[in-house]
Amino acid sequence: MDKVELIHGAGGSATDKLIKEVFLTALGNEYLNDLEDAALILWPQGELAFSTDSFTVQPLFFPGGDIGRLAAAGTVNDLLMRGAKPLYLSAAFIIEEGFPVKKLTTVVRSLAVTCRQAGVKVIAGDTKVVNRGSGDGLFITTSGLGLPAPNINISIKNARAGDKIIVSGSVGDHELAVLAEREGFSFSTPLASDVAPLVDLVTGLLPYKDAVRVLRDPTRGGVAEVLHNIAGASKVGIEIWEGALPIRSQVLVACELFGFDPLHLANEGKLVAVVDPAAAEDIVATMRKRPYGQDAALVGEVNDSGLVTIRTRFNTMRMLHRPLGGVVPRIC
Amino acid sequence: MDKVELIHGAGGSATDKLIKEVFLTALGNEYLNDLEDAALILWPQGELAFSTDSFTVQPLFFPGGDIGRLAAAGTVNDLLMRGAKPLYLSAAFIIEEGFPVKKLTTVVRSLAVTCRQAGVKVIAGDTKVVNRGSGDGLFITTSGLGLPAPNINISIKNARAGDKIIVSGSVGDHELAVLAEREGFSFSTPLASDVAPLVDLVTGLLPYKDAVRVLRDPTRGGVAEVLHNIAGASKVGIEIWEGALPIRSQVLVACELFGFDPLHLANEGKLVAVVDPAAAEDIVATMRKRPYGQDAALVGEVNDSGLVTIRTRFNTMRMLHRPLGGVVPRIC
Repeated sequence: MDKVELIHGAGGSATDKLIKEVFLTALGNEYLNDLEDAALILWPQGELAFSTDSFTVQPLFFPGGDIGRLAAAGTVNDLLMRGAKPLYLSAAFIIEEGFPVKKLTTVVRSLAVTCRQAGVKVIAGDTKVVNRGSGDGLFITTSGLGLPAPNINISIKNARAGDKIIVSGSVGDHELAVLAEREGFSFSTPLASDVAPLVDLVTGLLPYKDAVRVLRDPTRGGVAEVLHNIAGASKVGIEIWEGALPIRSQVLVACELFGFDPLHLANEGKLVAVVDPAAAEDIVATMRKRPYGQDAALVGEVNDSGLVTIRTRFNTMRMLHRPLGGVVPRIC
Repeated sequence: MDKVELIHGAGGSATDKLIKEVFLTALGNEYLNDLEDAALILWPQGELAFSTDSFTVQPLFFPGGDIGRLAAAGTVNDLLMRGAKPLYLSAAFIIEEGFPVKKLTTVVRSLAVTCRQAGVKVIAGDTKVVNRGSGDGLFITTSGLGLPAPNINISIKNARAGDKIIVSGSVGDHELAVLAEREGFSFSTPLASDVAPLVDLVTGLLPYKDAVRVLRDPTRGGVAEVLHNIAGASKVGIEIWEGALPIRSQVLVACELFGFDPLHLANEGKLVAVVDPAAAEDIVATMRKRPYGQDAALVGEVNDSGLVTIRTRFNTMRMLHRPLGGVVPRIC
């Protein structure tokens, strides 16, 4: 088995071989190994968080990660953004005919490692193969189940005037790292994607759960899109302080060069939090003690203007435009 | 908005427009409309069934259905096969740049209609757009959550010698209908795919739940693959009675012509049940009263041979081979 052929997606003994050798070897557990039509799990009474995401990133491998790590972290982070502990994932693979089994194995292992890091199990899966020229190597769709913390109320609708805005670290790393890999340019100081499951970071926020109003991961469309979503759903305005934003120098320079706004760039291991002003400093300090929150910063404030604005380094104000789309396509 | 462009997948205001106009219009509900990172639902204490499937069928529209109906019915049926009532779905769309919005709308509506028929809600979704030539029009991945009936134990491991095998209706319709549409041939008696959510049919079996050992939907690889899976997981043998199999005459003729085994052909609205022999006749009678079970038949028996065999119309025996793959690729 050197390359994935159409027969591997056709549901007979060839599919079975691919599933056992590539997928169960890396991801196997008591649920997945049974190869039933659906996994049965016990669920504690109460709430459940459910999320899904397809991943179509090009290239499949980039500095700091690959599509496997992205597919695990992306859905895990979506569950975390509702205050839920991620528990179970499904993973569905659409593979282009001719895709090397070795590469597939690398991606599946990377997904498995990221799942272990996040404390989740893949308990349902699917494999389809499409003809050469009808796909793009590999697409992965994950769905996830998470257990919300008791009495937690985190929603995009909860921001109110006076709340503070926190960003958990440097913005724009993922989109620029993927773009650089795709277009073949490089930075003198290397830049890697921030793709990571944020379980540890969000777990650290649980003692402050009554002070956390909104959590959102700024993926496609970046921090700007998230701020516009929050302003719209909560019917508030937001002011961001440009000078307070954590941005790596390589990202700043590249943004100058290409004319990108760093707040429009996608991140895959960051979160935006809207929090009670009384707890804001403590929350930033707590985040800074965690590996994925070392550069956390207080970057703005909620107001009742209905506008999303940015106060520049020169203390002038401008509108922070909502992106029409991400800066470059296919970054997640 | 005439065609889907890359910008519609990039997560900004263009994506928002596509989601609201095409997806929420057809699928909207109190969970999906909020556009949160994850949906929060209440779940009763106990078990939960979880399943996922990607759909890559070509062509996207075929007699009897389309990829939207297939994507809803496929995951709904997988949940039913564990004795679970399907409640919630996620749906993730990977769209090729240039795909007509009108066609997309038709597919999403078809998915919505099938969900209503099955009594499920789509509560989480995602939309990605890939470059022209990097996809094949449209791929859909659905995941589903189902509530298992109390004290039910239906598993591929539960078949035992003496049990009877039931097929819920004519076999092979889906794969031949898709193949005919793709290759441009037709039948003098029209043949349509059987794609359907089997909620009503499986609900009718609940009074017999202690007599039902295994349920499985014979999709890719057909009835033969399912029988091999059951024989392997339950460590039993199975004998099928050729003369008892419900097969439409067009399917029989086409199989003769092309050299297909009808038991290797995919179905999308059928189930295979392994049942207690004492209840077998009653179960067949019950199924026949339901629209999707009118042609249900008792077609074989479990034994302890470890082999999957078929007793022919001439009362000879042969091995029923496990398919290497489905007969044709891309049928679901």
